[in-house]
Amino acid sequence: MNTLQELGQKAVTAKYEVQKLSTEKKKRALKAVAKALIAESGEILKANEVDLKNGEEKGMNSGLLDRLRLSDTRITAMADGLVQITQLPDPIGEVLETIERPNGLHIEKVRVPLGVIGIIYESRPNVTADAFGLCFMSGNAVILKGGSDAIHSNKAITDVIRKALETEGVTADAILLIESTDREITREFMRMKQYVDVLIPRGGAGLIRSVVENSTIPVIETGTGNCHIFVDESADFTKAIPIIINAKTQRIGVCNACESLVIHEAVKDKLLPLLAKALKKKNVEIRGDEKVQQVIDCVPATEEDYGTEYLDYIISMKTVASVEEAIAHINKYNTKHSEAIITENMVNAEKFLNEVDAACVYVNASTRFTDGSQFGFGAEIGISTQMLHARGPMGLRELTSYKYTIKGNGQIRD
Amino acid sequence: MNTLQELGQKAVTAKYEVQKLSTEKKKRALKAVAKALIAESGEILKANEVDLKNGEEKGMNSGLLDRLRLSDTRITAMADGLVQITQLPDPIGEVLETIERPNGLHIEKVRVPLGVIGIIYESRPNVTADAFGLCFMSGNAVILKGGSDAIHSNKAITDVIRKALETEGVTADAILLIESTDREITREFMRMKQYVDVLIPRGGAGLIRSVVENSTIPVIETGTGNCHIFVDESADFTKAIPIIINAKTQRIGVCNACESLVIHEAVKDKLLPLLAKALKKKNVEIRGDEKVQQVIDCVPATEEDYGTEYLDYIISMKTVASVEEAIAHINKYNTKHSEAIITENMVNAEKFLNEVDAACVYVNASTRFTDGSQFGFGAEIGISTQMLHARGPMGLRELTSYKYTIKGNGQIRD
Repeated sequence: MNTLQELGQKAVTAKYEVQKLSTEKKKRALKAVAKALIAESGEILKANEVDLKNGEEKGMNSGLLDRLRLSDTRITAMADGLVQITQLPDPIGEVLETIERPNGLHIEKVRVPLGVIGIIYESRPNVTADAFGLCFMSGNAVILKGGSDAIHSNKAITDVIRKALETEGVTADAILLIESTDREITREFMRMKQYVDVLIPRGGAGLIRSVVENSTIPVIETGTGNCHIFVDESADFTKAIPIIINAKTQRIGVCNACESLVIHEAVKDKLLPLLAKALKKKNVEIRGDEKVQQVIDCVPATEEDYGTEYLDYIISMKTVASVEEAIAHINKYNTKHSEAIITENMVNAEKFLNEVDAACVYVNASTRFTDGSQFGFGAEIGISTQMLHARGPMGLRELTSYKYTIKGNGQIRD
Repeated sequence: MNTLQELGQKAVTAKYEVQKLSTEKKKRALKAVAKALIAESGEILKANEVDLKNGEEKGMNSGLLDRLRLSDTRITAMADGLVQITQLPDPIGEVLETIERPNGLHIEKVRVPLGVIGIIYESRPNVTADAFGLCFMSGNAVILKGGSDAIHSNKAITDVIRKALETEGVTADAILLIESTDREITREFMRMKQYVDVLIPRGGAGLIRSVVENSTIPVIETGTGNCHIFVDESADFTKAIPIIINAKTQRIGVCNACESLVIHEAVKDKLLPLLAKALKKKNVEIRGDEKVQQVIDCVPATEEDYGTEYLDYIISMKTVASVEEAIAHINKYNTKHSEAIITENMVNAEKFLNEVDAACVYVNASTRFTDGSQFGFGAEIGISTQMLHARGPMGLRELTSYKYTIKGNGQIRD
């Protein structure tokens, strides 16, 4: 038995402990962890310095270094995040359904934790505390595999959390960190089906693809967003233009940002000059189809553009002759994340809501609202883009499963 | 592009058609399919004869031949099954939750189909019609990959269904059959993530393991049941013995049959002789630990026995000193399917219900009740033994996902 399998066994032992914790005990432990993170911030920052120095030596670019960098403010934000989680309702134990059978069996469908959640993530070390908080409050044990660039920071944060849990009389193994940075270990982790119930990758498309390809553990895919806004024939431009600017430029590198515009031909001549002007102010490059090119100056769009999540100051534009054509185009190229229609025609709005295949479908609002806190979930572990288990923003409830409990008095089956 | 990919594209086109069908239209189509199966039973039986003849020539055993064999009665049962599905409530379109946000956004969580469901199954040709019926009524398109032994029967059944759908004005591609019996094609099918939303294997442990190992499509694992009954110190033997006999012997080859008994030491001397007598009448072989061997004649049990789903007239028996030890033993060896405690002590009953990790946990009732129709779901596609998405019996609702629809009037994010 190697270290990784030992870790798996520890997690399984811990999951049975964590799922028995009372709501009060979980809240108290999370608050203690929050305090400890602040109290031990010196140690955490010292470890972070090592990662930053290694990153600089490796020639890491300034964007990545910024994601990696911790500060007193960022550690305080991590701690605040944990305290916020304690203000959410505990999902565990909720009776989702009661069934009385004619033979006298009393069946309850009860919400339970998933068990052991594995999380594979890239550089940001704050994920270590955030992911632990959500998994713990929903009664799960968590095994974390962070990026090798952040290993010292992640280890320091995990150590602080584990110590604080122990002080509170909670098993430290509620959080376990894979410290090896060997890629072979990550592959082995993805196949630890006997110990890990669910695997959630958090990171870029490459990481997610690799997990989907290699994991035998059930995966929840998150975070790829090739989001569209369709401007219908009847769109109100005073809604359309601010929504497009917001969805494209309010935050450029996020999965709910708009990457592509679909425009009804009937409005292109009026809309495009106004829109081009507004986008130019924000330095957004437009890549348009032929009909767009006839109205405004832009780069010609290719098929590849329609399938690209730019995460950059670029937007593709495609004209269509009908809402049906818009829906077909979106269903072909989207990543099932967030899609919007801007329209004053409620028949088209309903059609779009029903027929567009995505976790979140909007009428006259920005795609940027696809977010756990914007939906009122308080916090989120990610945005699911798959059909199985959970779709869209995943909060505490989405980190749970259920069991059936059945009470009888001697019933046997005929 | 090969044939399999063409099939995938057809399924994607079909899923958008099927999810738009009204409840009435789906019911009418299923009833027409049921009628067509009866009307065309001659053709189906003729195709089945070919499979049976091939099976006999290959030296298939009589059990397998029986599973493969169709008859007028079995075809009528298939048709009746479809009609029964039309009597269930249509899950699609149900509003699961409504959220009003302070900024005026109106969010609805709406039940939608999963999309394209892939089903990989072994010999029984009736699965072809059953699986289609459940997937179709829940608004999904289905791609079926049956066992090569049943290929002619499956093809004949699929042809009848497709023709009947067309006559009803419904896309025939709501059901697609992979006709190739090449194993490489099955492997390729399991990686058609761009077309298939969920893969459900139905069959033995080997098939399920192979799908879990090779699929990049999200999988729902079903049907492995190493189910235990724990006879507690306070058990009422007039409940315990009939329940054990029922769970072990009422149907031997099913996943909710009892495979292992856990017995509180305090009752072993009284219970075991009575139980051994009752099990002997049913020709059940007992494999017991040392303490069991001290009380009754039996085969010594090994560690391997505790982990084995016999699906046969064999039961393992293990003694324990407490309910805690029983729970730990069960959580170590079970397959998270169905577990029962026989007890008159309600504290122990609650502890068992809370702490045993399984889809269905029983007090004083037979594990054989883990079944869609016994739970009142009307029908089932299988029993899920995983934590993700659905757990336990999976009916129509468990073949659905959800989407969020969000209506605004120009909201943008700050």
